[in-house]
Amino acid sequence: MSITRRKLLSMIGAASGGAAMYHAMTTLGHAAESPYAGPLELGDAGKGTSVLIIGAGLAGLTAAMELRKAGYKVQILEYNARVGGRSWTIRGGDRFTELGGETQTCEFAPGEFMNPGPWRFAHHHRAILDYCRRLGVEIQPFVEVNYNGYLHSRTAFGGKPQRLAHVIPDLQGHVAELLSKASQQHALDEELTAADADMLREVLKIWAGLDSNSRYTLGAESAKMRGYDSMDLSAGTRTASAPLPLREVLKLCLDSDIWAISNHSGYRDLQNPLFHPVGGMDMIARAMAKQVPGAIRFNTKVTAIHQNDSGVTVTYEDTARPGRPQQAKAQWCICTVPFPILSQMDLQVSPGMLAGINAIPFATAVKVALQFKRRFWEQDDGIYGGFSHTQLPIRTISYPTHGFNKAGPGVLYGAFMFGAYSYEFAGMSAAERVKKAVEYGAQIHPQYPAEFQNGVSVAWHRQPFSLGCTARWTPEKRVEHYQNTRAIDGRIVLAGESVAAAVGGWQEGAILSALDVVERIHKRVVAA
Amino acid sequence: MSITRRKLLSMIGAASGGAAMYHAMTTLGHAAESPYAGPLELGDAGKGTSVLIIGAGLAGLTAAMELRKAGYKVQILEYNARVGGRSWTIRGGDRFTELGGETQTCEFAPGEFMNPGPWRFAHHHRAILDYCRRLGVEIQPFVEVNYNGYLHSRTAFGGKPQRLAHVIPDLQGHVAELLSKASQQHALDEELTAADADMLREVLKIWAGLDSNSRYTLGAESAKMRGYDSMDLSAGTRTASAPLPLREVLKLCLDSDIWAISNHSGYRDLQNPLFHPVGGMDMIARAMAKQVPGAIRFNTKVTAIHQNDSGVTVTYEDTARPGRPQQAKAQWCICTVPFPILSQMDLQVSPGMLAGINAIPFATAVKVALQFKRRFWEQDDGIYGGFSHTQLPIRTISYPTHGFNKAGPGVLYGAFMFGAYSYEFAGMSAAERVKKAVEYGAQIHPQYPAEFQNGVSVAWHRQPFSLGCTARWTPEKRVEHYQNTRAIDGRIVLAGESVAAAVGGWQEGAILSALDVVERIHKRVVAA
Repeated sequence: MSITRRKLLSMIGAASGGAAMYHAMTTLGHAAESPYAGPLELGDAGKGTSVLIIGAGLAGLTAAMELRKAGYKVQILEYNARVGGRSWTIRGGDRFTELGGETQTCEFAPGEFMNPGPWRFAHHHRAILDYCRRLGVEIQPFVEVNYNGYLHSRTAFGGKPQRLAHVIPDLQGHVAELLSKASQQHALDEELTAADADMLREVLKIWAGLDSNSRYTLGAESAKMRGYDSMDLSAGTRTASAPLPLREVLKLCLDSDIWAISNHSGYRDLQNPLFHPVGGMDMIARAMAKQVPGAIRFNTKVTAIHQNDSGVTVTYEDTARPGRPQQAKAQWCICTVPFPILSQMDLQVSPGMLAGINAIPFATAVKVALQFKRRFWEQDDGIYGGFSHTQLPIRTISYPTHGFNKAGPGVLYGAFMFGAYSYEFAGMSAAERVKKAVEYGAQIHPQYPAEFQNGVSVAWHRQPFSLGCTARWTPEKRVEHYQNTRAIDGRIVLAGESVAAAVGGWQEGAILSALDVVERIHKRVVAA
Repeated sequence: MSITRRKLLSMIGAASGGAAMYHAMTTLGHAAESPYAGPLELGDAGKGTSVLIIGAGLAGLTAAMELRKAGYKVQILEYNARVGGRSWTIRGGDRFTELGGETQTCEFAPGEFMNPGPWRFAHHHRAILDYCRRLGVEIQPFVEVNYNGYLHSRTAFGGKPQRLAHVIPDLQGHVAELLSKASQQHALDEELTAADADMLREVLKIWAGLDSNSRYTLGAESAKMRGYDSMDLSAGTRTASAPLPLREVLKLCLDSDIWAISNHSGYRDLQNPLFHPVGGMDMIARAMAKQVPGAIRFNTKVTAIHQNDSGVTVTYEDTARPGRPQQAKAQWCICTVPFPILSQMDLQVSPGMLAGINAIPFATAVKVALQFKRRFWEQDDGIYGGFSHTQLPIRTISYPTHGFNKAGPGVLYGAFMFGAYSYEFAGMSAAERVKKAVEYGAQIHPQYPAEFQNGVSVAWHRQPFSLGCTARWTPEKRVEHYQNTRAIDGRIVLAGESVAAAVGGWQEGAILSALDVVERIHKRVVAA
């Protein structure tokens, strides 16, 4: 009875191949999305073998923990003065400097923070959930969808923000009514039997709040979905709210890139529930770092990674005392440095791997966090977590999804954008970004100017340790470069989100990539 | 600048009536659903006036707090040995006795609990949120929807439970594809202009994950909504999952009362986010009780409420020493006793009020909570909070929405049903209910028998302090009885969820009803 899930799965896998193993995982109850099969079990065969890890983000720390457990001698070189890499939390008193030299000091109140990078993970990200569980990192739900959040287009509804609580049910209601009508007019006779169509109309009614005539219209049924305008205690009655016209809803959806309404409710990666650690995203990296005491050397800028048949030589310098190169040696090197930085290093690997590193661009993004005197979005607007989406350059206002209902100051994300607007914002000084975020945001929340206290911003492509936020693989690039970037190249192997093509952009990918790399190196070591 | 929201609103209301006041509330940023306008501001004109409150649930406690603040002399008589009424939390060591005499002792581990009554409130329940804020009751999100939860019909999909993550996007996807097709075949030309239809098809595509030909079919687009079957790290690829056939989805929805999929994602009352207090629902009542020290007399069974022109006389007995009637007097009485109990009291009120009390039935419901050795639904099945719905008599399995990811034992709700099945379960002994919940639940979670530890159950119509869970008003009964039950009847007025026809079944209703009653009594007192 002492057989573990991982052992059982690997036995099944060895005996009958991947499909049988996948089937077994499903039967054993796993959600399929993440191939995580439980903690690595490497024994202690790594004893005496040394591994140098570049980067103390989630990939580097995961690799370090697992390798140490298996007896390896592990050292991590980290550019920043902290662990976590892009899994980063900024708190009051923290200072950071962007490329170009501007230094920001965060002035948030105690207990407030900003997660400039990842701020939540999915309920099917089994690896990160398991690490949180084993390391005792307390997690809490991340409120991704708040139906009281706004959609704001410059033109639809005359530029007046609309609550998701109206837009989402109204789109669904109109769609259901139209389909019900079409099926009654026999327009779908080729697609549906009469019995199917009957079932469909029945389901549509309840699904979308249609009335007894299958119409989505002002009344008790639609109000059940989209809410009431007002309530009269003295009469004991409520006044149903009137659905928005379909045309205007469609305009709003298209104007706001629709991303807003579809993405958040529906996409598998963002389906309810999502989670984040209590106290900030970096709590995970901090807990991991405690597992490898003494392993990390901070403020270390790696400039070259060379190798020969027996090992690697890494050249680095102390960021506080540049120009005095030092060297570290090990038998193996796991390099988790984001590609945009790695492509500038003197890296002795195959031309194929170099080509891959140079070929995969990183997305750019800017997040601006603003502290206000009070959580007016909760107290005045009834918005507890979730998002408002707008066509304005700030694109997204994200409300804090912890400390709900607290008195005193609160921090929200006043801007979060990719692409063109992110370049525009990144080009501004830190003070200008904050000023602009307040100006634009005031169009959604008029309370902004009176309540604003201070703000910080992170422009990802100006962060000297990443030069971007996440790797952007395409199917074509995967075919051309994936195997080359993933291969053990002599004594060097890459790990982290940059390489995790199948789970890119998520911390889950960084952890899975690290586990995969550790397993493969271990196999080589054991075989040798 | 010291004018409060409530004062401003009441000035607007006095000047220009209800519609203007509603408009002002909207303009001031209020979500409209709850008419809560902020804390009462009664001054101290109540000095010297005495009020006797029956029941220390949320309505009674709210009334007591607000009246004390205004100088009133307040006393509460409470049947139970605790505050909260139906807003109740059962923890390890707690004992309670149902009608018929069976006593259960809860054996939950420390930190675990069951909320047999209300277990969450909506983000637009402004009154309860404001009381939590002012009283420092910490709240956390209640995970209502978990896409990893199951829908289970006895027949659809051969009785195999299906994940909401598949059913919800697949219904949406098929619906969108059919409507897109119908609109292309000009079936909707009477409903939509050509331009509208173009916009509609564009929105449907993104909304529901249709492919470039507007089909909901196996591929990257549908996988974005419903997820992947597996992920291959060595190839960097994911295998898209295949949509379920529409006919089977429709069957499942109808078989499972569809309530499951529509209700939880869509109904305004249950839209994301919802909240619950950290540590159990009774934390709110406990915090309220601290505001009225010395006011509550516990274990007090009221048998009669009489009145004359100058005040009320309440007859009660100590539940531990029955048969020794005592009396309490006051100038006013606010009675929050649930109607099924109240209808059995010697209550000296108008025939109209009595008729109302007798006419409004209470819903019956049973909740069964089960403790298991470990949170296998999280660790094995990836279900963190939310619900599974089944046609089996247990109807609902509800997963704990706090303490996520913790090691050690966990408590879930193994059954929650209204109507017929609730009578069936209520008719069993406590041990039988738990046994049946484990037996049925094992059809969804085979881990049940091996992991089960203990359980408790609450059959609401067998609770001696309520004889049911919530009042069931209908529009017809409202017309006939609402004004009579709501009126100040001499010196007696009813308050609480029973009377809150417009917000029935929610704690918000109990609080709003209490505020309304306090305002009306205060007006009388000031006028006198």
